[in-house]
Amino acid sequence: MNIREEARAMKLAAPKLAASSAEQRNAALAAVAAALDAKRDEIFAANHADMDAAAADGVSGAVMKRLKFDTGKLEDVIKGIQQLITLPDPLNQVTLARELDEGLIMQRITVPIGVIGVIFEARPDALVQISTLCIKSGNCAILKGGKETARTNRVLFETIHAAAVEAGLPAECLLQAELHNEIDELLSCEKDVDLLIPRGSNAFVQYIMNNTKIPVMGHADGVCHIYVYKDADESIAIPVLLDAKTQYTAACNAVETILVHRDIAKNFLPKLAEAFRGADIRLRGTEEAGELLSDSADSSIAGTVGGAVVPEGYEIMQEDEFHREYLELIASVRVVSGVEEAVEHINRFGSHHTDAIITANDETAAYFMQMVDSAGVYRNCSTRFADGFRYGFGAEVGISTSKLHARGPVGLEGLVTYKYEITGAGHIVGDYASGRRQFHFRDL
Amino acid sequence: MNIREEARAMKLAAPKLAASSAEQRNAALAAVAAALDAKRDEIFAANHADMDAAAADGVSGAVMKRLKFDTGKLEDVIKGIQQLITLPDPLNQVTLARELDEGLIMQRITVPIGVIGVIFEARPDALVQISTLCIKSGNCAILKGGKETARTNRVLFETIHAAAVEAGLPAECLLQAELHNEIDELLSCEKDVDLLIPRGSNAFVQYIMNNTKIPVMGHADGVCHIYVYKDADESIAIPVLLDAKTQYTAACNAVETILVHRDIAKNFLPKLAEAFRGADIRLRGTEEAGELLSDSADSSIAGTVGGAVVPEGYEIMQEDEFHREYLELIASVRVVSGVEEAVEHINRFGSHHTDAIITANDETAAYFMQMVDSAGVYRNCSTRFADGFRYGFGAEVGISTSKLHARGPVGLEGLVTYKYEITGAGHIVGDYASGRRQFHFRDL
Repeated sequence: MNIREEARAMKLAAPKLAASSAEQRNAALAAVAAALDAKRDEIFAANHADMDAAAADGVSGAVMKRLKFDTGKLEDVIKGIQQLITLPDPLNQVTLARELDEGLIMQRITVPIGVIGVIFEARPDALVQISTLCIKSGNCAILKGGKETARTNRVLFETIHAAAVEAGLPAECLLQAELHNEIDELLSCEKDVDLLIPRGSNAFVQYIMNNTKIPVMGHADGVCHIYVYKDADESIAIPVLLDAKTQYTAACNAVETILVHRDIAKNFLPKLAEAFRGADIRLRGTEEAGELLSDSADSSIAGTVGGAVVPEGYEIMQEDEFHREYLELIASVRVVSGVEEAVEHINRFGSHHTDAIITANDETAAYFMQMVDSAGVYRNCSTRFADGFRYGFGAEVGISTSKLHARGPVGLEGLVTYKYEITGAGHIVGDYASGRRQFHFRDL
Repeated sequence: MNIREEARAMKLAAPKLAASSAEQRNAALAAVAAALDAKRDEIFAANHADMDAAAADGVSGAVMKRLKFDTGKLEDVIKGIQQLITLPDPLNQVTLARELDEGLIMQRITVPIGVIGVIFEARPDALVQISTLCIKSGNCAILKGGKETARTNRVLFETIHAAAVEAGLPAECLLQAELHNEIDELLSCEKDVDLLIPRGSNAFVQYIMNNTKIPVMGHADGVCHIYVYKDADESIAIPVLLDAKTQYTAACNAVETILVHRDIAKNFLPKLAEAFRGADIRLRGTEEAGELLSDSADSSIAGTVGGAVVPEGYEIMQEDEFHREYLELIASVRVVSGVEEAVEHINRFGSHHTDAIITANDETAAYFMQMVDSAGVYRNCSTRFADGFRYGFGAEVGISTSKLHARGPVGLEGLVTYKYEITGAGHIVGDYASGRRQFHFRDL
């Protein structure tokens, strides 16, 4: 069977998985955890072979780190599965119960989304995390991992699939796609695949979003901002900015643009520059910010770019470059006249991911948090908190910048939808249209 | 400004509307209701001109009925607005409040989706309904109505917009698009328009869905089924089938396919045929169903199609025609071996809209309602109940067959999303990564 046929078969089998009990799904998760533990040598051997091949291909150190699946990673994913088992069942929750009329009862009940396609680059641990989240939430999943860890993925997939089926879940609950051309085939399965979750680089996610009619959950880029208001406490602002830029620079929730209130820019910017120099972070931004930086006591770093006197290493940016996501030790900087201009900049150039303000003023903070149109709006803390684990969701399938369905870090709640069940005794609409009967809408 | 520029301006103004209070939005709705009442003569005059032009163009009677905007329609929409005012504010609801750690507080708060594009054919009352739902939920809306009611739409739009702005809402809250080529322009505004709601024919909605990257809420077709189980009470089954087919034949929730359990088919099908003949409904279906129908006492209607003996007027269908939505007095019929085959047929050929079973058996009903993958699954009542008003939602923007975001009839709840607000005191992620601090996740 090709992927299209497999997806069709999976779609038709999905209601069987949806009908499984929480006990069955939790037993399957326990079996998966035990099987991964039992197969550890086989998994590590496959991962060594992948790593060796990647090293021979000249893959960079940063990427090599993400390919690695060692004892630490294995123990993390097993711990994650054990936590998942303890979480409440996201399915069969009655979220609305209403008597529409005598003997006509409506219930809204949570059900799985159905068939989810997961496409990820590198990171074999993501395969384990997402497939177990799908099992817990009763969703069938088609998994397509990166070619760099093909051997690791295969062993992980086969181990998880065999354990889940052995524990009584339908064979169609999980499917692995291994060939690269299967991605495009998967993208065309809009009749049978209900949701795609891509995990990878900006360009990769953008490609998925632009080439499918299937709804995509996730985000292409994370252009996060921190706005330093005029009353900002420097002992809060500088550490938060350093954390947001350096704690994990390649993350989507790392800060890319720093906005500084004009009233404090002359004093604050040189201090920022000094702190960032210490962390090897390069600044670029508007001419105004550059000139204020060059006024700093540390005149040794002053240079000239165009007509403006700016510090050495500082680069003057074009306006539309404020859309850029660096994911490296570079930050954009701009001076703004106040919170209104900061909000306007963020809503115009940001990616609606996570943005923060540093201020002691409640009113200014409230305005910022109300007006910034992003999944996360923070005050006096690092943008790096945008994460399912740090929100207490246990695990996440990703972070969504979409306004539809789940927004922000997405846990189990984002993997369910609902259906309306109505039970009557021969009720017909004609009786209500003619006025013979009336609805009375009584919530139960 | 063209639509793209208008949409951009609207997107940047959307947070202002989102920040308006419930009192402001309700006052605007009251002003809209009063203005529509005051301008009734102007509205009716515009509608007469539209109706005259449509009559001169030879528009059919059924369509003419949908173009009409008379006293009854005006009073209905005004009553609808008054009900909308009484509904609770869907915005600024705290749906999660959690202390992540000492002094680090997270809240999840409902907010409007942002900018919604509404494209509809005919039905000027839909313009009023949807624009007032958008005002109540704090969403900016771009409205594009059908050309047949261009005059009516213009007066309605100008009346609503002027009243809303007069009441203090931002001028960008509503925008009317009047030119046909503006539809394609609107479809390309994926950066600024958060959601599209098309209301119209199957082909129209399908066109929208196939030509935009903006999420679309709605449904293209409604291929609804009723399965008559072997123990079905005929005094329930026949009236429910008649209601589901004839109470409003052109509605998306009208039944299109009738599945009958083989054990009762020989007895039930002739009774169904008789009842349907009385309502001028034509049956088409499988050869087996046709032959069982021709065994009926009423041998006068028997004829021969191909090799099979089937009743006169009965048409033998190809398998893939079971995908068809008739929206007229025609129904497909098929004999099935049991609830498993019925479920498989529905999940394969249906549109995941609304499907019903007629049975006295709790276990069979539970199986059907669990396994059928549709927004509505009903027992012993008509599929025509699938409607926001009949669910007690007050008003609806449409019915969604999507699994993401809102499913089934969509009221105010489907027009909001949420954002996460976090307030700290200089909290940084580095402290948690290093183990200096721990999250304690205490729900507030």
